[in-house]
Amino acid sequence: SNTVRASAPAAREADSARMPALAHREVAQDLSAEVEARLGTRLLPSAVPVDVAEFRNGTGSAVGSLDVRRGAPGSSIDFMLQSSLHCKVPTGAIDITSILIFLNASTDAPHFLLELIQGSPTLMVVVLDLFPRKDLALHPEYIEKYYENTQLDKQRESIEELPQTRPYRSPSLFVRSAFSPTAILVTIDCGQGGEDVLEDIVRGRLASVAKGVLQTWLNSCADQALEMEEGERDSMLRRDRIVRLKSIEVDLTANLPRMFDPDVSSRVIAEIRKAFGVE
Amino acid sequence: SNTVRASAPAAREADSARMPALAHREVAQDLSAEVEARLGTRLLPSAVPVDVAEFRNGTGSAVGSLDVRRGAPGSSIDFMLQSSLHCKVPTGAIDITSILIFLNASTDAPHFLLELIQGSPTLMVVVLDLFPRKDLALHPEYIEKYYENTQLDKQRESIEELPQTRPYRSPSLFVRSAFSPTAILVTIDCGQGGEDVLEDIVRGRLASVAKGVLQTWLNSCADQALEMEEGERDSMLRRDRIVRLKSIEVDLTANLPRMFDPDVSSRVIAEIRKAFGVE
Repeated sequence: SNTVRASAPAAREADSARMPALAHREVAQDLSAEVEARLGTRLLPSAVPVDVAEFRNGTGSAVGSLDVRRGAPGSSIDFMLQSSLHCKVPTGAIDITSILIFLNASTDAPHFLLELIQGSPTLMVVVLDLFPRKDLALHPEYIEKYYENTQLDKQRESIEELPQTRPYRSPSLFVRSAFSPTAILVTIDCGQGGEDVLEDIVRGRLASVAKGVLQTWLNSCADQALEMEEGERDSMLRRDRIVRLKSIEVDLTANLPRMFDPDVSSRVIAEIRKAFGVE
Repeated sequence: SNTVRASAPAAREADSARMPALAHREVAQDLSAEVEARLGTRLLPSAVPVDVAEFRNGTGSAVGSLDVRRGAPGSSIDFMLQSSLHCKVPTGAIDITSILIFLNASTDAPHFLLELIQGSPTLMVVVLDLFPRKDLALHPEYIEKYYENTQLDKQRESIEELPQTRPYRSPSLFVRSAFSPTAILVTIDCGQGGEDVLEDIVRGRLASVAKGVLQTWLNSCADQALEMEEGERDSMLRRDRIVRLKSIEVDLTANLPRMFDPDVSSRVIAEIRKAFGVE
């Protein structure tokens, strides 16, 4: 339905929220520029409708952007999804930035996943992982290949040693179960007056750790074509599908409708489901 | 070989370490009495040789005990293993107490696992979990049944809200991957002079949480006979076997030889491998 959008006059939309500049968004932009430089023509041009590429709600309190680039035929890339949300709330604003790069069934290598959820100028949740595609308890060799040999745990330690961080636990037990043992899941809390401290951490330690994890993914995962048995591939695809369905259920379908009008959020969610292949 | 044992004179053995009374060992004894009361005849009598039921090293710096009771034929219990280690170190002593109750292939219900590692009178690591037997990302219904509906996360929160606790991360990525999302993995650190504080926590909060988790396991797991497809059971058994092999590799074979003479530790490890069914 277009009812809600049609009822918001153009003048009002012009007054409404814009995506503000923010250190964490610049960091995400640098990462995505790095991905685009490295993956080059293995990413197809963006393919989302204009009213999903940028969207806002009728009252002007929230604005968002979504970009999805599919992998080129024959590449190991399924899609790269980037999104940014800015939503005014009574206490200020919430800003959420995500970069997901998912691989297809030509490889069992982990997906790349970054989510930055900034709840205030001094508080941020960081979710950063090479997202495993196999049952790790059943596949110690997978842990060794992608997580031990790549020394990913050092990146986690480098963030967690900051006195401003504490572990973040998703309320969803499923989400907790799906991450790797080296996942970075932290709250960075700089306390009252800590705006500059957070910005320094974001531009300093966080940027460098996120870049390190991305480099590992680009070097050790993005190119890994792999011989797999039929049964192994089927089981990986089944797992991938459940993880994708559950992530959408837990994360996006829970959050977007709280921020945006129903027609906007359902249009955006539909595009994300399309990218995830779980329409 | 009996060489090392034979060379330790009887007088010296009599002088050597005894298992000291310790709050955490009393808590473990209460739990094991509860298990024995509830499982009753579903546990066969203890079946370890006397020189494994109690063992010590030649220099008298370490003493240990191991008890293994198999499940009765037709029950869902594979085995219950209890062990206690006391080892003098230059700075004091390390005390490790474990209770593992593993189920067999008649059910997919989680195993019970408690490990208390006391490094000093003020410092202790607690590992307490209903140990999952399926790939949780592939089986959200398993999470719901055994972890969400049972509200196990409240037990974790109840320990972690204590200011003396901080998350404990195993250095082994495999071990980290194998636990459930509600696993209690904490260091309780009461700091200098905190002997009484630790003892209060152990007898109070820790005892009550461990009892709560055990009750959940006794009520929701220990009795669960279950129809399973052949393929599902095979895959669960394969997973169980890898987890058992890896746990022994990471945990016991790494620790026991550091504390005990080679003939003692290999005799004890052999008995544990027998219980685990991975000889």
